[in-house]
Amino acid sequence: MAHIDLGLDEKTLPGISGLLRYRPETAGPLLALADALLTAPNSLTRGERELIAARVSTLNECTFCRDSHSAFAAAQLDSGMALVHQVRADPTTAPVSAKLRALLGIADAVQRSGSAVTPALIEAARAAGATDVEIHDAVLIAAAFCMFNRYVDGLGTWAPDADAHTESAARIVEHGYSFRP
Amino acid sequence: MAHIDLGLDEKTLPGISGLLRYRPETAGPLLALADALLTAPNSLTRGERELIAARVSTLNECTFCRDSHSAFAAAQLDSGMALVHQVRADPTTAPVSAKLRALLGIADAVQRSGSAVTPALIEAARAAGATDVEIHDAVLIAAAFCMFNRYVDGLGTWAPDADAHTESAARIVEHGYSFRP
Repeated sequence: MAHIDLGLDEKTLPGISGLLRYRPETAGPLLALADALLTAPNSLTRGERELIAARVSTLNECTFCRDSHSAFAAAQLDSGMALVHQVRADPTTAPVSAKLRALLGIADAVQRSGSAVTPALIEAARAAGATDVEIHDAVLIAAAFCMFNRYVDGLGTWAPDADAHTESAARIVEHGYSFRP
Repeated sequence: MAHIDLGLDEKTLPGISGLLRYRPETAGPLLALADALLTAPNSLTRGERELIAARVSTLNECTFCRDSHSAFAAAQLDSGMALVHQVRADPTTAPVSAKLRALLGIADAVQRSGSAVTPALIEAARAAGATDVEIHDAVLIAAAFCMFNRYVDGLGTWAPDADAHTESAARIVEHGYSFRP
């Protein structure tokens, strides 16, 4: 049960969903940020960006964000959930492109601290073909999930089983984050 | 010098300012979030909310955010920068209300991890008079600065001296974050 009274059934609106309903004033910017980072046109695919979200959420031990963004990634990757689990466990050995591996290395550093992002990590990403915008977006996706993860767990929200995100994955793939039926 | 080429003079647009100019697609939601959390009408004063931002940025060792939000807090508090420095150093002994002290305790926990927010911390805030919305907002302000701090430092942006934020403080007090002249 959440730390505050959200005035709703957490089984119906688990994790961040109940918080977004509870506080629409902040929900708008948060969902717009998620769309700008994860669904807007980008040289990184939507699956690749969701992998960064799933990896950072794994490091932050946020069950709801880890499981939901794993489902969103798997729904948009040819290799599906098998690849997601490899990236979550160890991006350095997961079968992704050299560019994505380097960006995941930057994301891992951001999860620890902004100052953990070294010139060597940036140079490795550039050497693997990452553009400045891709480096920017990888840093901001990782930073944003350090927010989303703390928001979801800091308010003690409930997380369903890992296989409960199929429906929201289909909705987000089709409509993005800001869409509300 | 920032890790990526922002195409601008960092002395003119230091810290997050240059990043917002570089990537307007994400700047919009980020500034709207800052306004919803820090300048919109709230039972917590603007000075109190900026104190939470300054404290979390201090813990995350983000020079630009620490110094700028310290200036924004000081500009909106009767006790000015002296109180800001006390809160930054130790919220448990700083001369703030019992309610704000308890909310700062929650913010300190969020900075470490979402799961560090215990029922005891929530109960202490409630006992000191905090409402559910105030607890929600304290958690999300702290979480958001775990993002902003990582964004600013993860991209290696430049920070000016601590006394360089007077002008931006005056602008933000008058117009909020989203305003661009």
